[in-house]
Amino acid sequence: MSFCRIFFALALPVLAQHHPLDGLTTSEYWAVYDTIQKAGHATPDSYFPSILLRAPAKDAALAWRPGQPMPREADVIMLEKEVTYEARVDITGKKLVSWKEMKGVQAPFLDSEMSGAGEAMKKDPRIVEALKKRGITDLNLVRCSGLPVSYVSVPAQATARIGFGGCTEIHGSYHGWGRSIEGLTARIDVVNKKVLEVIDTGAVPVGAGAINYEELPENPRAGTTPILMTQPMGAAYKIDKGEVSWQNWRFRFRIDQRLGVVLNLVRYTDGARQRSVMYEGSISELFVPYMDPANGWNNRVFIDAGEFYADGGLLQPLKAGLDCPATATYFDALMAGERGTPKVGTQRACLFERASSDPAWRHGQGPEVYGRPSRELVLRSAAVIGNYDYIMDWRFLQDGTIDVAVGATGVIETKSVAEKTVAAHGDTHAEPEYGKLVAPGTLGVNHDHFFSYRLDLDVDGARNSFMAERLVQKLLPNDPMRKSIWVVEPSMAKTEQEAILDIKLDRPAMWMFVNPNVKGPLGYPTGYEIMAGATATSLLSPDDPPQKLGAFSAHQFWVTPYDTNQRYASGVYPTASQGNDGLADWTKANRPISNTDIVGWYTLGFHHVPRAEDWPVMPTMWHSFQIRPFHFFGKNPVLDLPKSLQ
Amino acid sequence: MSFCRIFFALALPVLAQHHPLDGLTTSEYWAVYDTIQKAGHATPDSYFPSILLRAPAKDAALAWRPGQPMPREADVIMLEKEVTYEARVDITGKKLVSWKEMKGVQAPFLDSEMSGAGEAMKKDPRIVEALKKRGITDLNLVRCSGLPVSYVSVPAQATARIGFGGCTEIHGSYHGWGRSIEGLTARIDVVNKKVLEVIDTGAVPVGAGAINYEELPENPRAGTTPILMTQPMGAAYKIDKGEVSWQNWRFRFRIDQRLGVVLNLVRYTDGARQRSVMYEGSISELFVPYMDPANGWNNRVFIDAGEFYADGGLLQPLKAGLDCPATATYFDALMAGERGTPKVGTQRACLFERASSDPAWRHGQGPEVYGRPSRELVLRSAAVIGNYDYIMDWRFLQDGTIDVAVGATGVIETKSVAEKTVAAHGDTHAEPEYGKLVAPGTLGVNHDHFFSYRLDLDVDGARNSFMAERLVQKLLPNDPMRKSIWVVEPSMAKTEQEAILDIKLDRPAMWMFVNPNVKGPLGYPTGYEIMAGATATSLLSPDDPPQKLGAFSAHQFWVTPYDTNQRYASGVYPTASQGNDGLADWTKANRPISNTDIVGWYTLGFHHVPRAEDWPVMPTMWHSFQIRPFHFFGKNPVLDLPKSLQ
Repeated sequence: MSFCRIFFALALPVLAQHHPLDGLTTSEYWAVYDTIQKAGHATPDSYFPSILLRAPAKDAALAWRPGQPMPREADVIMLEKEVTYEARVDITGKKLVSWKEMKGVQAPFLDSEMSGAGEAMKKDPRIVEALKKRGITDLNLVRCSGLPVSYVSVPAQATARIGFGGCTEIHGSYHGWGRSIEGLTARIDVVNKKVLEVIDTGAVPVGAGAINYEELPENPRAGTTPILMTQPMGAAYKIDKGEVSWQNWRFRFRIDQRLGVVLNLVRYTDGARQRSVMYEGSISELFVPYMDPANGWNNRVFIDAGEFYADGGLLQPLKAGLDCPATATYFDALMAGERGTPKVGTQRACLFERASSDPAWRHGQGPEVYGRPSRELVLRSAAVIGNYDYIMDWRFLQDGTIDVAVGATGVIETKSVAEKTVAAHGDTHAEPEYGKLVAPGTLGVNHDHFFSYRLDLDVDGARNSFMAERLVQKLLPNDPMRKSIWVVEPSMAKTEQEAILDIKLDRPAMWMFVNPNVKGPLGYPTGYEIMAGATATSLLSPDDPPQKLGAFSAHQFWVTPYDTNQRYASGVYPTASQGNDGLADWTKANRPISNTDIVGWYTLGFHHVPRAEDWPVMPTMWHSFQIRPFHFFGKNPVLDLPKSLQ
Repeated sequence: MSFCRIFFALALPVLAQHHPLDGLTTSEYWAVYDTIQKAGHATPDSYFPSILLRAPAKDAALAWRPGQPMPREADVIMLEKEVTYEARVDITGKKLVSWKEMKGVQAPFLDSEMSGAGEAMKKDPRIVEALKKRGITDLNLVRCSGLPVSYVSVPAQATARIGFGGCTEIHGSYHGWGRSIEGLTARIDVVNKKVLEVIDTGAVPVGAGAINYEELPENPRAGTTPILMTQPMGAAYKIDKGEVSWQNWRFRFRIDQRLGVVLNLVRYTDGARQRSVMYEGSISELFVPYMDPANGWNNRVFIDAGEFYADGGLLQPLKAGLDCPATATYFDALMAGERGTPKVGTQRACLFERASSDPAWRHGQGPEVYGRPSRELVLRSAAVIGNYDYIMDWRFLQDGTIDVAVGATGVIETKSVAEKTVAAHGDTHAEPEYGKLVAPGTLGVNHDHFFSYRLDLDVDGARNSFMAERLVQKLLPNDPMRKSIWVVEPSMAKTEQEAILDIKLDRPAMWMFVNPNVKGPLGYPTGYEIMAGATATSLLSPDDPPQKLGAFSAHQFWVTPYDTNQRYASGVYPTASQGNDGLADWTKANRPISNTDIVGWYTLGFHHVPRAEDWPVMPTMWHSFQIRPFHFFGKNPVLDLPKSLQ
């Protein structure tokens, strides 16, 4: 029976559409395609960097019931040479709702633009000559590409699609990471595949450190024995018409080409009630600035979700037994190719239950030990953006907590440098600047990773307030025993500016979504807390163009009123952007956020100074935060767990 | 074979002594006992709050080889009524090395003192009368005890052992947590079991919220299926004469009555070399101040390791299948009872391997996914200090990282209050002060948890330096593309004061132990980084007596030169203490710490504002930090893992 259930789940991944919040289906992608073709807007030069489900209005999605007609729309970005068009398509009615040329923005780069720019470079005599000077004559071994730059950095970006080109060499390996050809860059008109400018600041030997993370013959570490995690009666989660149910949790999710996994309608069954926790939760954006001012490096500021989702989408395939255990269920995803036709990406998410080996709670009382072992449900995906891999987890704990985690792995970006070791610099530890050697002649360049999570919590309903409960020292001048304690000073944020929060250890606060309209049995408004984990703040200057674009990274938490059009923390068009769309810009309006539908934005960030251990591939480094009930339940919700996992 | 191996491990827990760093054996405890008796210092009134292995000098321990004579000593605290004596015993020679009366300190409280004080209270007519006023006449249902106070708060502590007494009622339950009888406290001379003073500030109804975390008949949550983690060929770790080996890790550990698990000689096998990572690592102290100025609460400042280890020891039994999975190996511990004779505590630590379900590293490249699944080795123990339970983990990762984690669970401390709900306070969220209601009439009182970890890292040898690598903004006035980056500014801490570190997100730093005498292949000194997790700083006033005692909590990291006598971050005698021993005091000397044997002290802390979900028992809340290689290896050390866990 359970085998059948798993088989059923595998055979029916989330390609079907059962709910207004589900992802676009094959026939819907074709409806979009046909509608634009029929409207006469497409030509043989038309590309489609983005075709996404247009999220339905929240009230409509919440009011919808099975059997009712379903409003379905798509947001489309069409690219015609340098010109970007935006369309809104009524899928059900197969008609164009709107169509406009977008001025002053640039559509995401297509894979074909990036690789085409690279091919153009290799045909350019200046490049060929510069490579020859470096001793490189076999162009088969050279890989070039032209990447977008997220912020406006050169005037030409205003009218042209400019790729910033660079090359690597693959001699002696099966890939080119770690073999950058430094000092040689180009600026390419990627539409016309024309090299506009070649900059050669002088040759540097190509890094020659070991880069082969997989090497045959295999010689695995000895001394291990098998560890098997099995569920002989099958996993206990169910998937029914796209709704996942596990223990007391209920939720839906879709796989969005731009954002990856988008959770919806996250609820917790509390007795007879299905109580709302979060209407929607997803990554909103990634901001990855590098910290090297050299030519070819000062342009490396990546907005990883919004710039690179054309064609392949943010997520890449998961591998069974590596990324997810043997008991996992996998989900495929439909997405649009650059010509606007759909394709299926396999194994873009997985769902599995795991025994944590940790007690959900325990208490020792004399010789007795009371408690319950715990398990959790993990919804996992992996984003791969060129060199970097991000494992992205939503972990549902039994006690109503959601653990949100990102594991960074993959290949760090390196720069070929002259130094084979730092010995010449003595004990100063100061050189080379801008990074650390990770292999001879191979510098791991310093950088940051910032993730903005969009968390549309709807605690017991859409109308919530945001409260910062500050912990403040209180002196006790008349106490014979002590001089000080701390007390909690709650402050309800009335507007967006009051809810922009930084983490300071000497001024701690709890961040709370509360529903002032629903009181728990003790009289407190029901609530959920955002509990930060280790995180970081951006060190860039606020007026720096990259920082303007990644401005969400300046603070650890933000709250906005719900707006279905405000989904991307660095704006809809983060390529060659002025940084005038996104969280920092929206919140200037300082809109009211009290007792209304609000959205939280958590910044998960870390600075990365590479080490030799990160090379030639980086051990996974995890960061996380929690979304946890606070006076949501009237008591510990895991008293009733079984006493054994078996 | 593997079954035999596991059986062997179970049959021979770490009671034997194979190495100078191993715990005291039965015969050694008896040698200590006999030596003190023979020296004529003990009387029928003698108690022994503390008999601990005196850690051998590091150079002697490192130089020792099997077969050589082993220096073995014990540090003893003897209590004779109010007088504290300190003895050092040469176990091998069965002779007293030193004996002295200690002035101005107080030995840890004995269980018999705390319970005896409670019994004295119940016999005191003032208490009986005060209970009667509260409608409590059946004294069988009343539990009283007299607890120590960690700091000097009343003059009588100077000459007497003063217990601060309070009572709970157990009617309707099988335990008394959550049933405090408020407003009624006493001060008791615990040696003479005499109630010195009764303070009655007025009756408050005893909290009547549900407190039964275990209730029969069981009605476990439905809808689960078994999850089995099995190792059909046995676990791959080995334990040989007290040395644990697993993958490339090697380490020893003992179970110390005061500190719990003490790791020693942690090494990583790197090719042909066994390289030193950490000579010793353990909890050093716990500081748990409550934040309520009421009588009976302003004395609640606990130094949980140093105050409460007499008799039972810090650690309490682990339960198979709850605290550790079915595949775990358990370790018993010998300790001294209050009369100085040894007893065996069972299952005080466990060791198990677990599949993490997460990749050690991965990289997706087009349709290919490369990577290795990971597993980890967990050494776990559980401290129970009255109401609270702390699960304490040392998790060895395959890549050379040690993940140090604490899970807080158990029963929070509550105060009976008049309020059944907060409804009367409207939406102010401000009342009642000093905590949150967790059940009707039951206030979960605000408090902190601070753990000081003593980390005697010896990276490739004992002589190390401590380096803070600060990330500092650098403006780029002449860069055409960008205005700012950050760069790393390394600074070697020359003295203790330079190495007192706080976490500030806008001034981040990496904390690094480096060996300036050993260079890796790239010329960097080999190193290990302490990577902080989410943590906290104390908000108490620096001149507050509790804060003087828990002064380590004012900063997140400290470094001292190695001193075998400096093990306890709040001093050897934290009961009724002036707070003039411990980390903050030692570091005033501002000793040199450069290229010498140094010790790091990490503060893991969190503020705890209770919520209804924490009642009647608290879901486990985890905090952690990492000790991870940084230029210790020449490359990623987990490239060679097997491709499967099976």
